[in-house]
Order: sequence, then C-alpha cells, then structure tokens
Amino acid sequence: MVDIATRVWNHKWKIDPIVRSLIDTDFYKLLMCQSIFRNRPNAQVTFSLINRSQNVPLAKLIDEGELREQLDHVRSLSLSRGESTWLRGNTFYGKRQMFTPDFMEWFEDLRLPPYHLERVGDQYELTFEGKWHEVMLWEIPALAILMELRSRAVLDKMDKFELQILYARGMTRVWEKIEALRGLDNLSIADFGTRRRHSYLWQDWCAQAMREGLGDKFSGTSNCKIAMSRELEAIGTNAHELPMVYAALAKDDDALAQSPYDVLQDWHDEHDGNLRIILPDTYGTQGFLDKAPDWLAGWTGIRIDSGDPATAAQIAIDWWSARGEDPREKRVIFSDGLDVDKIKDLHAQFTGKTNISFGWGTLLTNDFRELAVDDALAPFSLVCKAVQANGAPTVKLSDNPRKAMGPDVEIERYKRVFGVGDQVEQDVFV
Amino acid sequence: MVDIATRVWNHKWKIDPIVRSLIDTDFYKLLMCQSIFRNRPNAQVTFSLINRSQNVPLAKLIDEGELREQLDHVRSLSLSRGESTWLRGNTFYGKRQMFTPDFMEWFEDLRLPPYHLERVGDQYELTFEGKWHEVMLWEIPALAILMELRSRAVLDKMDKFELQILYARGMTRVWEKIEALRGLDNLSIADFGTRRRHSYLWQDWCAQAMREGLGDKFSGTSNCKIAMSRELEAIGTNAHELPMVYAALAKDDDALAQSPYDVLQDWHDEHDGNLRIILPDTYGTQGFLDKAPDWLAGWTGIRIDSGDPATAAQIAIDWWSARGEDPREKRVIFSDGLDVDKIKDLHAQFTGKTNISFGWGTLLTNDFRELAVDDALAPFSLVCKAVQANGAPTVKLSDNPRKAMGPDVEIERYKRVFGVGDQVEQDVFV
Repeated sequence: MVDIATRVWNHKWKIDPIVRSLIDTDFYKLLMCQSIFRNRPNAQVTFSLINRSQNVPLAKLIDEGELREQLDHVRSLSLSRGESTWLRGNTFYGKRQMFTPDFMEWFEDLRLPPYHLERVGDQYELTFEGKWHEVMLWEIPALAILMELRSRAVLDKMDKFELQILYARGMTRVWEKIEALRGLDNLSIADFGTRRRHSYLWQDWCAQAMREGLGDKFSGTSNCKIAMSRELEAIGTNAHELPMVYAALAKDDDALAQSPYDVLQDWHDEHDGNLRIILPDTYGTQGFLDKAPDWLAGWTGIRIDSGDPATAAQIAIDWWSARGEDPREKRVIFSDGLDVDKIKDLHAQFTGKTNISFGWGTLLTNDFRELAVDDALAPFSLVCKAVQANGAPTVKLSDNPRKAMGPDVEIERYKRVFGVGDQVEQDVFV
Repeated sequence: MVDIATRVWNHKWKIDPIVRSLIDTDFYKLLMCQSIFRNRPNAQVTFSLINRSQNVPLAKLIDEGELREQLDHVRSLSLSRGESTWLRGNTFYGKRQMFTPDFMEWFEDLRLPPYHLERVGDQYELTFEGKWHEVMLWEIPALAILMELRSRAVLDKMDKFELQILYARGMTRVWEKIEALRGLDNLSIADFGTRRRHSYLWQDWCAQAMREGLGDKFSGTSNCKIAMSRELEAIGTNAHELPMVYAALAKDDDALAQSPYDVLQDWHDEHDGNLRIILPDTYGTQGFLDKAPDWLAGWTGIRIDSGDPATAAQIAIDWWSARGEDPREKRVIFSDGLDVDKIKDLHAQFTGKTNISFGWGTLLTNDFRELAVDDALAPFSLVCKAVQANGAPTVKLSDNPRKAMGPDVEIERYKRVFGVGDQVEQDVFV
C-alpha cells in the first residue's frame, strides 16, 4: 500500500529543510545564550564561517540559491510550544528551571537575525552581525546546513543501491565502534557531533545506536532536539566564544588578563556541579591555570579541547593536586578529535587518576571516510566563530597554534598578556 | 505521518506468510513440471525433506504449529491472473508460449496436494505423496519455508539495532561480492538461491543488487515471482529429479541404463538452444558421457553440480572435442557451492576454452555466516528430493559419494549398471 497522503505531502515541500527547529542546536549554546543575555546583552558581535579545509571548495559543491533557501528557512523558525515546554519543564544536569522565565520569554519571541552571504572564489563568506546572544545562535545551524548540503551534493550523484550500501557501511562502522567501546568500565561518553554531522537523520540514528549499544555508558547528546525527541540527557557546558568575546571587550591589558576569569565568575554565579567545567585552553592552558584564583580549583572539571589530550589532562591533574584538591573527585572531559583508539587510550591512561568523560563529535556523526568515490564524504574542518566584538577583533591562541585565530598583532599582544611561550603544532583533523 | 490503514492491515494477518505465490519457485520446476505432465502424468512419486545438517535441530528451532500454518497457507494458493498472464505471455529463453495451453489450464486449477509432517527427535519428517507433477511443486516452497522459519527463530531473539546492523552487514557483504565480480569480462551469472534463501525479501533484495551492480552480467533469477516483479529473465533448465524418477520407473537393468538418455530425448523434443543443457552427474559424469548418443553432443551445454568443478568442466570439454564439437561454441554452467573466489578461479581457468555461466545459490542469498551469535544464521544443507516412484526407491550416485542417495543395495546395482568405479569424496557445504 502506498500512503498517498504522505507522498503528496513530501512532494509539496519546496526544499527539504535541514534545520527544522531552533533547538536543533547544541545545549551549551542555549546555556551560553542565557548567560550572555544576562551579562552582556548589549555586546555587538560578528560570527563568521571559516573553512579550515581549503581543499573542499564549498562554493563549487553547494549551490548558492539552495544555501540561501536553507538559511532563510532557519530565519522562519521560532520556538514551538512543545520545545518551549521541554526547555521550561525539563531537568538539566539535575536542576529544574535551568532557563529563567525572562530568558524563555525572550527566546519564545526570537527569530534569528539576517545573514550576509557572498561567494569569494570557491568559498562562501557567511557572516552574522548583531546582538551577541542572537547571532551566536546561528553558529550550529549554519555549520549543520553547510555540512549537510555538502553531503547532499555528493549523495546526489549516487544511485539507489550505492546509497543503501553507503548507509549499510556507515551503520556497520558506527556499530563496530560502539562494540569496541562497550567493554570499557565506567565509560561516560556523549554525542557532541551536531555541528559537523553528516545529516540530521544520521546524527539521530547515531544517538539511538549509542543508547542501544552502550546503555548507561552513553551519557546523552549535545543536540537539544534529539535529546527531546529521544528522551536523552542534553549535554554541554560552555565554549571558547565566552572568553574570546569577553577578551575582545576588555578595555586594556589588565582587563584582558582578567577576562577569562570574569567569564567563569559569571558562570559560577549561575551554575554549579557538573556544569562547572573549565575550558582552559583559549589563551594557553598552563598559564590560565597558574594564574587562576583558588575558587576555580573548587570547580568540578576541566574540558580538554586542543593540544595533546594526555599532556593537558596531566596538567589538570597536577594543578588540582597543587591546589590541594583530590583529582579523583574531579572530572576531565575530552572533546577534541576523538575516535575509538584515542578514547580507549585515554580511558586506560586516566581511569583511577580522575573521572573522565568523552564528548565525541565528528568521527561519531560523520565518519564516511573512504566510503565514497574520491573520499568525497570525508569530514572536513569547518567552524563558525565570533571574530569581532564591539568593533574589536577576537583572538584565540589555543594549545595548538594551528587553531589560533585573530590578527597577527593582536595574537602577539595576547601572547604577551597571557604569557604564552612556545607551543607544539598539531594537525587539525576535524 | 503514520499510515494507519497499512499498519492495521499488517496487524490483521494471522501469520506473515513466507510463500505467497505458486510461482515463488524455481523456473526449472515449471519446465520440468510441464515435461512430466506430458510424458509421465501417471507416475506416483514421494518427495521427502532431508536435512543433511543434523547439527541444526529444526524441530527445536521451529514450532510445529507455525510450520503447519505456513504449509497450509501454500495449499491455499492458486495461480493469480497476473501470474498466469506472465507465464503465458512472456518470452523465456527467447521463446514465446513456452508453456502450452493445456499445461496452463491445468496449472491454473492446481492446488498443492496434502503434506505429511511428523516430528522425529529434533528433526521433522516432511513428505509429499501423489502425482509426480503435483508433488514436485512442493520442493521449493517447503525448503524456502523451513529456511525462513529457521531465520525467523534466530531473528526473534535480536533487538531492533542488532537487526539493523545484521542487515547492514549482510548487504555490505553481498555488495562487496558483487563489486569483486564486476570486473570479470564476459561474466554471466544468475541467482539460483531460492531454495536456501535467508528469506523472500532478502532474495528479492539480492536479485536487485545483482542487477544494479552487474548490469548485463547478471543474466537473471531462477525465481519466477522475482523475475516477474523485477522484470528479470527467469533462468533454469532441468534437475536430478528427472533422471532419478525415470530410473526408478525403469523395468529392468537395460531400461535403467537407458533411462537418463530417455529423459533427455523427451527434453530434446520439447526444447532447443540454451535450454538443451545436460546435467550429467546423476549416475556419474564420465560414464554418462562415454555412453551418450551422438545427438547429445549437439546440445548447447553441460551443468556441473557435484564433484570438483574444474575436473568436471575439463571432462565436458574433452568429451565435446572427442565428439567433433567445438567446445568454444558450447556452454558450461557451474552451480555447485559457488562463492566469489571459486567463481573467479573457474572464470579465469575456462574463459576462452568454452562459454561459462554461473548459477549462484546459497552463498548469494543466505550468506549470514558469522553475523549472528553462535553463527546461528549460517546456511545449512537442506534438500527435498524424490525418494520413491511407483513404489520403487530412487537412487542418486552423483560425482560426490557424499551426495549419494538411496538404499545401499540399489546404490550397488546402479553403480554396476552405470559402470561407476571409485569416486572422490568432497565436503558438502550447502
């Protein structure tokens, strides 16, 4: 039996929208959005798309008209009643009413601000200018749209059976990864793969496979829409954009040096427990920890997002010990370029020394390496970052100089202010 | 959108029938049926299920009630108008009206005769007694039902994601086999996998994958239902049951010695071209060919279904040469226990010496080896054979003594009559 109504309904769509909900985004964006809404409501910020993989000519692969249609569709979205109810009524990290009534009222009325799109050579320049807490919500949908339009461009050339085998192989690969992780005692791993996912449906499948295969070892997903629809925990804390914009807003070098701690002071006032996670690498992990106030050592954990993860985790453990804290009561969250072998290595190396969690991104939700001709579905390194705040450029140093961002003169200034010396370069895979 | 009507419809079925059509059977059964209908309409024959894999306890795996329901459902089937139209109107092997009007009239009225089912230990005794051309039509549905009920027994214990991954792996495996065969020049390969398929839907998928992946190198399927619904060629000629029953009906040793040639004389009168394929191994290939009349050397090809295939093919080539025929204008069809490596070896060995085709069975449509716990979905060796004709036991010698059938005293008599000496034993895999 053909379900005629469904078929006709599907054919009525002018486009097949990639992002269909304002909460098809990472949970930490909403937490940060609320924090910014409260603490920096007047900051004017520019977010910009940056394709670190110049060998992927996005403007040749993706039609500009289709890209605009997808972005325009996101601008037509508003929070649905059910989504609002979920955000208001759900328990996040054990806490009810994580989102305040005034924030929710604002969010319920929100439509995303305009975008600026221009083709430059084989790449797109895509920027979002406006109030920080509004434009920051573009980051994840913009990335997800570009990633999925690129997937679609490749999939368009494949026939029915090639597609079926592609997904059979992709599913088998994800499942074999899950089987390889299943035996790890006390594993705690979350899906962090929204921004560079192959597609929404694929991420949704991966999250369900993780729950099915790992049970309680799967701690949840960063994606709010999937967390809501699959009744999973929404996972995430905070990201580099907070210290980057706070730093750019700093009036002088003293304020700049203080800015990363201002971010966490604001966060400290808003959150406790497992949401008190330090992301220390924006301007160099070692310097940040050396100069950190003692109250930060009382926080629950540290997220490692650049540099050699084992080195960075050991720095964190040593720092807690030096500050009189027991690392075995702390938590290290690894979230940079993870795949099964790295997860197993880090798990073996740090189990017993501290609590560890993993935020598994691109190689969970977009590992189609070698599965298409010319490896055309391999993931690539696309980011969408705050590049300017109230007219000043933002800067990121990271623990890996290849992830550094900002004008050279500002990078030098930041290195001086934060006392960052030589750094080891590491390949940025995704 | 849920299609409520479809869902309710599916739930209305008391059972999920495995065999839903009288033409969900091998094409050669219908050709042989017509030949028997014309030449031996009064022969009383018994077909019997034989599980060569005693390590698979069918009666423990499969509920007797479910088995009866499935067999009863087959007895409720009759040829549909569309199926009849297809058989009457289609071109088979380049010939229109392959099936005569009197045969079609009989077939349109046919319901399959009763079956006799009894549990003996951990196995089932399943027999069919009656007119040869009626009971012989039970062979394929009986095998397909038992194979699929065994698959279902294993699948019942798997959860949703395990099932999804099982089929993802199975599909990937089939597709990789197809990719491995794609490069062979002048390949001609057909699906012969109805009788030992994992399931109907799986065979249907495999046939479509073969067409998609191999194009013209896929010559068709033995399954009439799939040939009809997917617009593929229906493939097949004749099988051991013809010489086995003709032999059992022979009045004395002289008639016995002549009986295999009587079979082919009848076939000769009915068919030409690519349907003139000798199956020479029933009572020993070498002796059969040595004593064959010259008109048989004029036939198009020989099917190799037991013994070492390369040896048997060489015997065929040498025989044609000795009879003054050019082997390069002949065809050898390999159909015994094939998989990719054997197909590639035989293709490499015989290309240029003769035309070759492959009839790929169990390891096309039921290769789930190592994909379930305890290898519980591995294919196994189940056959349904004519064991008696007009009260006399049937005998098969084959080129592999492990495939021999019949009472010992009769086997000795047949060996004497057909001059079969020592034979090499070979493992029977499927």
